[in-house]
Amino acid sequence: MQTLTVDLGDRSYPIYIGPGLLRNKELYSPHVKGRQVLIVTNETVAPIYLDDVKSALTDYQVDTVILPDGEKYKDLDTLNMIFDELLDRRHNRTTTLVALGGGVIGDMTGFAAATYQRGVNFIQVPTTLLSQVDSSVGGKTAVNHPLGKNMIGAFHQPQAVIADTDTLETLPLREMAAGMAEVIKYGLISDSEFYLWLQDNVAGLMSGDDESLAEAIYRSCENKADVVAQDEREGGIRATLNLGHTFGHAIEAHQGYGKWLHGEAVGAGMMMAADLSKRLGYLTEKDEHDLLRLLQAAHLPVKGPKDMSCDDYISRMAVDKKVLDGALRLVLLKGIGQAYITSDVPRDLLEETLMAYGAAR
Amino acid sequence: MQTLTVDLGDRSYPIYIGPGLLRNKELYSPHVKGRQVLIVTNETVAPIYLDDVKSALTDYQVDTVILPDGEKYKDLDTLNMIFDELLDRRHNRTTTLVALGGGVIGDMTGFAAATYQRGVNFIQVPTTLLSQVDSSVGGKTAVNHPLGKNMIGAFHQPQAVIADTDTLETLPLREMAAGMAEVIKYGLISDSEFYLWLQDNVAGLMSGDDESLAEAIYRSCENKADVVAQDEREGGIRATLNLGHTFGHAIEAHQGYGKWLHGEAVGAGMMMAADLSKRLGYLTEKDEHDLLRLLQAAHLPVKGPKDMSCDDYISRMAVDKKVLDGALRLVLLKGIGQAYITSDVPRDLLEETLMAYGAAR
Repeated sequence: MQTLTVDLGDRSYPIYIGPGLLRNKELYSPHVKGRQVLIVTNETVAPIYLDDVKSALTDYQVDTVILPDGEKYKDLDTLNMIFDELLDRRHNRTTTLVALGGGVIGDMTGFAAATYQRGVNFIQVPTTLLSQVDSSVGGKTAVNHPLGKNMIGAFHQPQAVIADTDTLETLPLREMAAGMAEVIKYGLISDSEFYLWLQDNVAGLMSGDDESLAEAIYRSCENKADVVAQDEREGGIRATLNLGHTFGHAIEAHQGYGKWLHGEAVGAGMMMAADLSKRLGYLTEKDEHDLLRLLQAAHLPVKGPKDMSCDDYISRMAVDKKVLDGALRLVLLKGIGQAYITSDVPRDLLEETLMAYGAAR
Repeated sequence: MQTLTVDLGDRSYPIYIGPGLLRNKELYSPHVKGRQVLIVTNETVAPIYLDDVKSALTDYQVDTVILPDGEKYKDLDTLNMIFDELLDRRHNRTTTLVALGGGVIGDMTGFAAATYQRGVNFIQVPTTLLSQVDSSVGGKTAVNHPLGKNMIGAFHQPQAVIADTDTLETLPLREMAAGMAEVIKYGLISDSEFYLWLQDNVAGLMSGDDESLAEAIYRSCENKADVVAQDEREGGIRATLNLGHTFGHAIEAHQGYGKWLHGEAVGAGMMMAADLSKRLGYLTEKDEHDLLRLLQAAHLPVKGPKDMSCDDYISRMAVDKKVLDGALRLVLLKGIGQAYITSDVPRDLLEETLMAYGAAR
């Protein structure tokens, strides 16, 4: 087992990474302060892992909420199912919520913990690669609104994250690839050494090698934690974590959310960001080619959907949440491992990139 | 105009107190950082004050949400009307919400501000005495759940509070009295000098004297701010602000919320807390009598409803939110201006108090 501490002063917490962790009693007990626990999970995850987690929590009053599975249930109504159970079972302010599942479960459980009686503790037990490397660090919690994703939420840090690599054995390949997009992203934005390591180890990761996975998760969380520690509330540098995301959101929004996985859209989006960085003179042809091969080895798309035009991209990108007072801001690369933020992107170069990797004419 | 600064480090903010403030442009502009403002108010307040507030905000994109009036609408569904408007009108992260109304509007607008895009700014414009002295300090925001009041919420501090004493001219007498309950409470728990001042000035306050009202609001907010600055997240001393509230909640819960106003229930509850403190040897007969007269002069009830038995009180008090791990904790007085918290209350004395001021046999 590896342990990484996310350093946020009095809100610091450990991430435990390795196989067989989710049934390890001793990882939970230091982080449960009261006598009550509510496990929040979904219909897909519950049959596989719920009993294991319960068996690690026999010392407490344990209640369970099983939510329907899917991004479309990440809303205020479904959130209310968590509050119903907490109140029905008389959970008090010392209760601890346990989020058992992927990013949707983590985001919703975290938001419920942020707002139940104005804030209670929670533990993340992420069961997808994406949630292990992404949502377990950063304290972002949220639900969606019909007019926008993650529009209602809070910053709320967990007491601990238990990232059990065994859970990835049951993960569908497409979701594994989607998680890899974020892993690769950390290399690109801030860790060229890790990026080289990924090129050497991508095959092992995709075939589920435990040790490689633990290493990739550790390095990803470490990179993200570094950025978050510098900028917990997303005023500046944290925005570099959105590499590929502005392009990616345009794809997701155009296709209708759920058709492409978020990580798949980010994969194609990173390719566009890299290509645009090359056109601006910051990356080499070889850099671009290496990324293409890495994304392909991770089973990720490298181009956007065939039916999207330049205008489709540009109009979608302009209403992205990251747009501040009207100016399109993009995260690009000055080199592998060196992300930067710019609102000064020549329209013709952007269109060339979209023509090369995204858009039909 | 008086200005009080609530000192909370980088979350410090001013409270402006005096007549004619809500149409004063210069009180808003330093606290609006972006170009968008959403005014949240209700059907009762809008016809009287909405245009005045709008006239002070002509430099911005101003949108408005008018919610139905009443505690029963303080729920997630009504909250969503605020999010609908924010998203429909494309408010971004730099938007500022303005809460124009009483405690319900303040709590809901504050919670919407705490959670819209994970937190935006807001300004309180409280239009009742209760909200001017109570909810404008402390950063507590919330909505109700069918199984409990204020069960879903967050701590979120406003950028500024604009307490216009003119708004009290249109306030019904019962609501004025309910606000006075909290004013008297501040004297009782931490400010014996203010308590004496209240005894001398209660008549002027109840007849709407501007200068006395501004003074009472200032001293109340100052006292509350002192407590909150010591204990922003309610771990310890902040609980003294609940003097009379555990008894009061029992009354409200038994009667059905809305029949007695919260302040009325707190009035009778403070009388019970004082009586119990006397039985414990901490207050004199004269202290008790003085409080009785002060509450009566403020048009507040001094006894609970006739149909409540001792058991009705005790069973309701045991499920109050402030109960920690099963022990009933009460805020009592060691003297006028000296509140303390105890979980060591002899059952027979509690019953004697309930017999004297609350309960039918």
